[in-house]
Amino acid sequence: MIGGGFAGLWAVRGLRHAPAEILLIDRHNHHTFQPLLYQVATAGLAAPSIAAPLRHILRRQRNVTVLLGEVTSIDVARRQVGLEQVTWSYDYLVVAAGAAHAYFDHDEWAIHAPGLKTLEDALAMRARVLRAFERAEAAEDQAERDAWLTFVIAGGGATGVELAGTLAEIARHTLKREFRRIDPATAHVLLVEAGPRVLPAFPEALSASARWHLERLGVTVHTGRPITAVEERGVRIGSEPVATRTVLWAAGVAGSPLGRALGIAVDSAGRVPVAADLSIPGRPEVFVAGDLARIEQASGRGTGLASGRGSGLVPGTAAAAKQMGCHVARTLLARLRGQPGVSFRYRHHGLLATIGRRAAVVDLDRIRLTGVVAWWFWLSAHLLFLIGFRNRLVVLIDWASAYWTYQRNARIIVD
Amino acid sequence: MIGGGFAGLWAVRGLRHAPAEILLIDRHNHHTFQPLLYQVATAGLAAPSIAAPLRHILRRQRNVTVLLGEVTSIDVARRQVGLEQVTWSYDYLVVAAGAAHAYFDHDEWAIHAPGLKTLEDALAMRARVLRAFERAEAAEDQAERDAWLTFVIAGGGATGVELAGTLAEIARHTLKREFRRIDPATAHVLLVEAGPRVLPAFPEALSASARWHLERLGVTVHTGRPITAVEERGVRIGSEPVATRTVLWAAGVAGSPLGRALGIAVDSAGRVPVAADLSIPGRPEVFVAGDLARIEQASGRGTGLASGRGSGLVPGTAAAAKQMGCHVARTLLARLRGQPGVSFRYRHHGLLATIGRRAAVVDLDRIRLTGVVAWWFWLSAHLLFLIGFRNRLVVLIDWASAYWTYQRNARIIVD
Repeated sequence: MIGGGFAGLWAVRGLRHAPAEILLIDRHNHHTFQPLLYQVATAGLAAPSIAAPLRHILRRQRNVTVLLGEVTSIDVARRQVGLEQVTWSYDYLVVAAGAAHAYFDHDEWAIHAPGLKTLEDALAMRARVLRAFERAEAAEDQAERDAWLTFVIAGGGATGVELAGTLAEIARHTLKREFRRIDPATAHVLLVEAGPRVLPAFPEALSASARWHLERLGVTVHTGRPITAVEERGVRIGSEPVATRTVLWAAGVAGSPLGRALGIAVDSAGRVPVAADLSIPGRPEVFVAGDLARIEQASGRGTGLASGRGSGLVPGTAAAAKQMGCHVARTLLARLRGQPGVSFRYRHHGLLATIGRRAAVVDLDRIRLTGVVAWWFWLSAHLLFLIGFRNRLVVLIDWASAYWTYQRNARIIVD
Repeated sequence: MIGGGFAGLWAVRGLRHAPAEILLIDRHNHHTFQPLLYQVATAGLAAPSIAAPLRHILRRQRNVTVLLGEVTSIDVARRQVGLEQVTWSYDYLVVAAGAAHAYFDHDEWAIHAPGLKTLEDALAMRARVLRAFERAEAAEDQAERDAWLTFVIAGGGATGVELAGTLAEIARHTLKREFRRIDPATAHVLLVEAGPRVLPAFPEALSASARWHLERLGVTVHTGRPITAVEERGVRIGSEPVATRTVLWAAGVAGSPLGRALGIAVDSAGRVPVAADLSIPGRPEVFVAGDLARIEQASGRGTGLASGRGSGLVPGTAAAAKQMGCHVARTLLARLRGQPGVSFRYRHHGLLATIGRRAAVVDLDRIRLTGVVAWWFWLSAHLLFLIGFRNRLVVLIDWASAYWTYQRNARIIVD
């Protein structure tokens, strides 16, 4: 089992009564609640509030051994997984190594435009954002000051929208009265989406609502123009140059390089095409689940794909990853009992995105919510799914305090 | 004003009604509650719980500008302070840049034996400790496993005692049942103090009590033998080699290099000898406060130095630093009014150190406490002095949950 994200962890849990020896390998010692990473990146939550050690989560499941380590090679012919110093053999392999952001063949942009997939990313992004305001305060000329106070967010999906909304609030409310040489409220927050609208996975009405809420918060929304250059001192949006020192990347999908190690052709985003039972072609003992898997879904009621949105692919969300993880566990249990497996069927429960402190958009297929009601729904759903009682309580306190005081409790730059 | 620790921050606050323009420069954007750093290092608390942004703390004090930056030079003749790109002139200068740990002319040890003075240090130490258990679980031979499960703490002061006690608890309780190939309870925690007893600043009876509590927790206490070598794969205690991969340094004092920039002779620990009003010889407009200052105190009742302990120097504690900061503010206010200043007089309120989850030692000069009572006293005192209501509440929750469950809520390795 490679990867302790939503897919990997749910697959392991699904096998808790299986007569099997499970080895879970992850590069990190913790499971990360990715949907709230943007809150860590924007100083709303401390890193430990949205993460829990994998071996603590799984301490009572005696058939699993958790190992911290990085998988460097997979040999599907010999059924072996290689780490830095050791090699493990397997009977069944589940690869749930996730995805990173894609820079569209411009990997050199990554250094100026960090993405947001791990806690490390989130802490680095937090330090970058907070430091930008500090640099603006220290700057000696106006052009430099303006560049430090311009924030460009690439990608109008849920993460981009959430980052932009929160950043605008930080500039206008959180930092109010704290600076002497600059007015943080003059900061520019630009959200750039190459496609025609923000939140492309949502219905059009909700995209429009999100845009309206963002603009009310002071975010400048650019749609229909991609970012064509990223450098240390600025970006190019379409053909227009923008001076900025802070670019946050929330666009594209690039499957983990481990996908390529499986020896079959991956799609342009590096995802592994899987069969209906999530195994890979010709290797029924190897499964791929989560963001790394590419699976088409027949459209139909309840799949969320009926209305012609997207490409009919199962989306790269936490909910989809959990479902795939559970499905792999069920398939393995059936195989161990000598029974046939069934096809994976994605059940679409809904999509959520929050925009600042009192608005959100929620698409539950039949029900669509916007504004305050959606925000309360978002809040409850995220608290409910956050692992660990203590985390929930602390997050609730942080949110309540942030709501009443406009403050953010993790405004700490740590390198 | 250089440094936003206890001395610098209290000096700034003491000048809140002064007709002055105050510039506070710090390398970090936050004030750190140093007495609880060991809790961040041992995964009990999240970093933001013991830190608050300096500009947020001081947002209502309109006569102060906070700048994030590193002072690289001080020119006392020209009355100028140099940062990387800019130079500031001053009428009065307060240097409160603190101290680091001292490696006794073996700076090459630092890479293997990190100290604990900043949040960065604490997070690095946390990652090192947690990773040691992970490496032990992954190790393929017994000698390597044992070395990963051996923890050496250098220095038997309050920080060393607190680290050792907490580490022993983590090994015996927190990690119980979470590993499959090792038993974390077999870990060795060694506390090494070169002097004759742990907690040398406390009365002998309390040192003995602390040692008893540590040994009951399973810590091996070595006194009277210094560490004579530190390498990647082990240390030497006196002449005895010990195989270990984790050495935590909590010994010695090395004043900030900025002390040397003042152009007067510093003591062997790099501290700046100051006059009775905390100014430096020949420069009445330059003050040094906090751990960087060296000041002798006439012994007598209420100074805590009457009983012949230590060298009669004001100790390097948070309380002493606050008192010095306040005193500098009072002296500056007097000068601005054309009045004479008074001599600094250190008032000793007490010393505290905690040992694991239900014991502590408290020395209040007339009252001495040990065991559970001392631990409750320690708990209340630290909660009381922690900056910010929200921090207090979250810390209280973390402590309560840690107490009942033996769990630690920040067991997250982030690089």
